[in-house]
Amino acid sequence: MKIVVDAMGSDGYPKPDVEGAVLAAREYGVEIVLVGKKDVVEPELAKHQTAGLPISIVHASQIIEMNEHPAAAVRSKRDASMVVAMQMLKRGEVDAFVSAGNSGGCLASAIFYLGRIKGVERPALSSVFPTRQGPCFLLDIGANADCKPVYLQQFAIMGSLYAENVLGISKPRVAIVSNGEEEGKGSILVQETIPLLKESGVNFVGNVEGKDIPAGMADVVVTDGFTGNVIVKLSEGVAKFMLDMIKEEIKARPLAMVGAALARGAFAQVRKRLDYREYGGGVLLGVDGIVIVGHGRSDALAIKNAIRVARQAVEARVVPSIRESIAAHLTTTIQE
Amino acid sequence: MKIVVDAMGSDGYPKPDVEGAVLAAREYGVEIVLVGKKDVVEPELAKHQTAGLPISIVHASQIIEMNEHPAAAVRSKRDASMVVAMQMLKRGEVDAFVSAGNSGGCLASAIFYLGRIKGVERPALSSVFPTRQGPCFLLDIGANADCKPVYLQQFAIMGSLYAENVLGISKPRVAIVSNGEEEGKGSILVQETIPLLKESGVNFVGNVEGKDIPAGMADVVVTDGFTGNVIVKLSEGVAKFMLDMIKEEIKARPLAMVGAALARGAFAQVRKRLDYREYGGGVLLGVDGIVIVGHGRSDALAIKNAIRVARQAVEARVVPSIRESIAAHLTTTIQE
Repeated sequence: MKIVVDAMGSDGYPKPDVEGAVLAAREYGVEIVLVGKKDVVEPELAKHQTAGLPISIVHASQIIEMNEHPAAAVRSKRDASMVVAMQMLKRGEVDAFVSAGNSGGCLASAIFYLGRIKGVERPALSSVFPTRQGPCFLLDIGANADCKPVYLQQFAIMGSLYAENVLGISKPRVAIVSNGEEEGKGSILVQETIPLLKESGVNFVGNVEGKDIPAGMADVVVTDGFTGNVIVKLSEGVAKFMLDMIKEEIKARPLAMVGAALARGAFAQVRKRLDYREYGGGVLLGVDGIVIVGHGRSDALAIKNAIRVARQAVEARVVPSIRESIAAHLTTTIQE
Repeated sequence: MKIVVDAMGSDGYPKPDVEGAVLAAREYGVEIVLVGKKDVVEPELAKHQTAGLPISIVHASQIIEMNEHPAAAVRSKRDASMVVAMQMLKRGEVDAFVSAGNSGGCLASAIFYLGRIKGVERPALSSVFPTRQGPCFLLDIGANADCKPVYLQQFAIMGSLYAENVLGISKPRVAIVSNGEEEGKGSILVQETIPLLKESGVNFVGNVEGKDIPAGMADVVVTDGFTGNVIVKLSEGVAKFMLDMIKEEIKARPLAMVGAALARGAFAQVRKRLDYREYGGGVLLGVDGIVIVGHGRSDALAIKNAIRVARQAVEARVVPSIRESIAAHLTTTIQE
């Protein structure tokens, strides 16, 4: 298996991207192609023990920065690392692409160069969300700020397949985010989507409210990209707020020294349990290829795990499964 | 000042509702009217020392339960405590209404019996949200799942007035929830609302992402009722998840006994800092009267604080201020 990695992706590029790729090549035995400015990537790679590892470099002279307008940047920078890598994936030279770069740019270049899987209306960005009962797969988290019911139906089908085949959750419980658990609740979008979810063939368990998501009431949670983005970022913000506040309170108490020591250990463990890096980034579902989009703040561990997820998605045949499911669903719908 | 309290409002009615009312009458010197089934409320009130306190009871034979369809219940139960209380407010017999009952029922009966303030398109439910930098006023949190730009503009005007006059925040920073800080980001609704916020006369500071809300980047945060509901409930869920997880980790460590003791004190303090009860419930803005909607799980302290907020809102002349601001804004808009 051959995976192309954007060496100029993360906020701290190329260090974490290259190191993560080296770790993955060593640990998972995958072949790695690093794409980026050769004069930057080569010396970075030389810092590592790579003898015998199947790692090569492909030169790309440009970079899409975090603050650029995604679609415009993808159009104007034809030699950006992200664009070059996406084209390699399109030509079938590699099996998957991993980038911790501009996620809008990944989305735009994936749509432009790979195209959508036949029958898929809109690709979705997804994220694995830690909950009380293990990981939950959330989509869309930002690719489509405004959605139609059929988009959400397809997100449910794709998300359910992914949760089953890659995350190993059998018969995943699929839910839709709403402003109340009762079926009568919800925006017009939610109310119009519910009948489509019922006939989508997934294990649809109904509406979830905000508080049900961290409680782990569903394995796959679908929502529009606006709400999904708010969910992911608000959770990060609330978690940080809580950790900061609890640390303050523990340190302010008598036995502060003991408290600080205890807190350090406990908090490190909590952070590990919540660590987005362990989950290896979000997958872009619905495009005709495996694209894993890591967090901009990715370090080497996050990049390594993103490569692990890419490998799992290829092995689980995510793209062909989605193609078959969407085609089968379209046939059923038309026959009805 | 005279405040009518729904004695059959909270999940545990009438105990917390009656006790909270007694505490408020004693502490704030407000006159209280308890509305509910006389044979239930009277014996409950008799458990307290009320000699000399200005508390009376008005009988209402029906109750709107938490699981009832709000609008239907309000229409069919003309003698529900909530409906009777709302009519008293309409007739000017009392200055404000406090209920911890079905919030949809409060909204429906407020719209039906009080009506909207002239010029207000849609009333909004609001909540005071704890953040790193103090309280933030969030609206709408569920009255309107689907919104138009002008609703959000009016939420901003009403929220800013409330934050300034009741919460005492001078020149409150007003922001709109979006899926990115950049101005180009956002759903169609958000993008169409931004120009209206810029010309609304409030101190509009731009978009906030999910993570910016607990960080305290704005004093007033406007959003549609769907997203607002998800924000409030997700925050509750994430906070609970974090507290549970951190407690587990602290107790699992060496020095577990010390850890548990420390944790107890620190966690009690954190819970207090996050306690919705301290903030006294949400206010219904845009209806022609002061209506405070408490959390269903309200205890006596929460009810007492909701009555305090009602008194502050009356003293701050919230309804007349909104009437003037909306009228002034409409005049400006028409003149342009």
